[in-house]
Amino acid sequence: MSPMNQGEWGMACGIPQGQHGCVTLAHGEGGRVSRALIRDRIIAKLQERSVQLLFDAADVGAFAENIAVTTDSYVVSPIFFAGGDIGSLAVYGTVNDLAMAGATPMFLTLALILEEGFPLETLDRVIDSVARSALECDVKIVAGDTKVVPKGAADGVFINTTGIGRFQQPRMPGSRQITPGDSLIFSASIARHGLAILDARESFGFSPSPATDSGPLHQIAEALRIGLGCELRSMRDATRGGVAAVLHEWAEDCGHAMWIDEAAVPLSASTRGICELLGLDPLFIANEGTFVAAVAPNRCSEALAILHRFSRSREACKVGEVRNRVVSPVVVRRVVGFDQPLDEPLGAMLPRIC
Amino acid sequence: MSPMNQGEWGMACGIPQGQHGCVTLAHGEGGRVSRALIRDRIIAKLQERSVQLLFDAADVGAFAENIAVTTDSYVVSPIFFAGGDIGSLAVYGTVNDLAMAGATPMFLTLALILEEGFPLETLDRVIDSVARSALECDVKIVAGDTKVVPKGAADGVFINTTGIGRFQQPRMPGSRQITPGDSLIFSASIARHGLAILDARESFGFSPSPATDSGPLHQIAEALRIGLGCELRSMRDATRGGVAAVLHEWAEDCGHAMWIDEAAVPLSASTRGICELLGLDPLFIANEGTFVAAVAPNRCSEALAILHRFSRSREACKVGEVRNRVVSPVVVRRVVGFDQPLDEPLGAMLPRIC
Repeated sequence: MSPMNQGEWGMACGIPQGQHGCVTLAHGEGGRVSRALIRDRIIAKLQERSVQLLFDAADVGAFAENIAVTTDSYVVSPIFFAGGDIGSLAVYGTVNDLAMAGATPMFLTLALILEEGFPLETLDRVIDSVARSALECDVKIVAGDTKVVPKGAADGVFINTTGIGRFQQPRMPGSRQITPGDSLIFSASIARHGLAILDARESFGFSPSPATDSGPLHQIAEALRIGLGCELRSMRDATRGGVAAVLHEWAEDCGHAMWIDEAAVPLSASTRGICELLGLDPLFIANEGTFVAAVAPNRCSEALAILHRFSRSREACKVGEVRNRVVSPVVVRRVVGFDQPLDEPLGAMLPRIC
Repeated sequence: MSPMNQGEWGMACGIPQGQHGCVTLAHGEGGRVSRALIRDRIIAKLQERSVQLLFDAADVGAFAENIAVTTDSYVVSPIFFAGGDIGSLAVYGTVNDLAMAGATPMFLTLALILEEGFPLETLDRVIDSVARSALECDVKIVAGDTKVVPKGAADGVFINTTGIGRFQQPRMPGSRQITPGDSLIFSASIARHGLAILDARESFGFSPSPATDSGPLHQIAEALRIGLGCELRSMRDATRGGVAAVLHEWAEDCGHAMWIDEAAVPLSASTRGICELLGLDPLFIANEGTFVAAVAPNRCSEALAILHRFSRSREACKVGEVRNRVVSPVVVRRVVGFDQPLDEPLGAMLPRIC
């Protein structure tokens, strides 16, 4: 799907800004519509009431003693897919939110909403996966909750994990400090999670079947932070809305332009093939263990050397740089050779991918 | 419903212990079946994997620097009912979990799962209610998340709130320290929340319509803690499973017997009437702003004096005492004059009450 198609598809479906007065799938997909809902109908209303809000665009808040907090609900469908499942996703996703904010993950809470009739054996598999991933990430599960709703009132299992971590010192500058000249790095080949979900759901039967990149990023993030200090400006895992969503958020935060070279984007041959077949733009497809980093230009090769020490980021490469903004906030040099503005993901390309 | 009926009803519906290999509504209702699921299929499996678990039976964990954490998902249906709604319930419920554990509530996270087609205007009402209650409880909302699932994959809105608080010093002794002789206090008239939900759902049209007791308990709890110190043994809001569930958990924790006098239980005339009409035992019906306290006998009148200062607990009274256990863990002296063992709530009397 080209960026224009993505926008048009959204328009055609009547997605924009909830003009029908109802929640649409687009409201949950991490794009512009999603952000508008959160900004205008949730954050604004809470602030109106003088509720003190501490969360920024990354949904991570800081309070006393450098504690970082993040929360996420996981509603992925199907719950098992090549390379992962809802249990590990719920642990890695929340651990990664903390890691990307420059915090060391410490504690998780685990809340399950189960549909009546959900097989206990399947529940066991999910909990096993939660346990295995929590151990791998060295996070403790400190509180839990289980609710059951009647058949038809939910779909199998939904999981909420809330993560608590400790910000490392010195604090990472953050996306507002991204500066023209900074290098943009993708940590691994992109678009694997979204295609794994799509294939598991639609049974396309691709061979090899695309597997998710879902996995923990806390060690990689810590190594980068320690290695680069304040010259690591910002990191963000490219989940809903793909790398396009991250680049757009950063462009909005810092006011500059994000420029990337499509030819430099790490992409496996099979991902490329599937995307071409289905007419999808991999820049918009969700990842769950791949992130974007902005680093000072003189530290880019050092950042890559650090990333290459970890198997999960051994394909990391520089894909572009931050430039002064002329018109478009995000620009991609397409393989054919010309620069093209990259649309902000508007809404749902694939619902329930995480 | 008499205690025996409660048990039989559960048995007749094939609820016990998930013998059909599937999740049943009973698994979510806070009774024995619920506790078995959590103990055997979640906590045990997490521990097997050496995941360090810090949560106790109250789902509240403590870690460094006296931080308390609790998580709860709210799936109540309908989402608006006399005296409350899912938004305020999600704030008060989590605030109360912290307060009952002897902690001062500080921060909440807010995660929404919305069903496609949910009216934005209804969302606004829910968020307004969250904002109002957070302000009332003086808690900050530090992180948020919004997911949307396709129509039919959820029912309107589900809310998860995770609460973070600070344990007050000296720490409350807790339910394991409950001692024979201790007085048992109910903070207010019971069974109001469950009946409010039942009436809103089934449109019985009772007049006056029963209203929930849902409301914040943090100030009352703090006053009791400060006033009584370590002679306040334990507090617990009597949510799913009603006061019967709390008394059974405490009996299991401390090994003694909980004895209450039915004639002393605070109960409004209209609640009593509805319960008699429907054949329900109010001891098993959920509350959302009413708690049970165990206090040293010589401090009971002081505890009541403190409770009577607050409008929410002006009907507080001593309902019984802790005794040496003979056979039954929980005994109720029925109005007719004889002592009767009180069954542990087994499973779902009313699904989706919180």
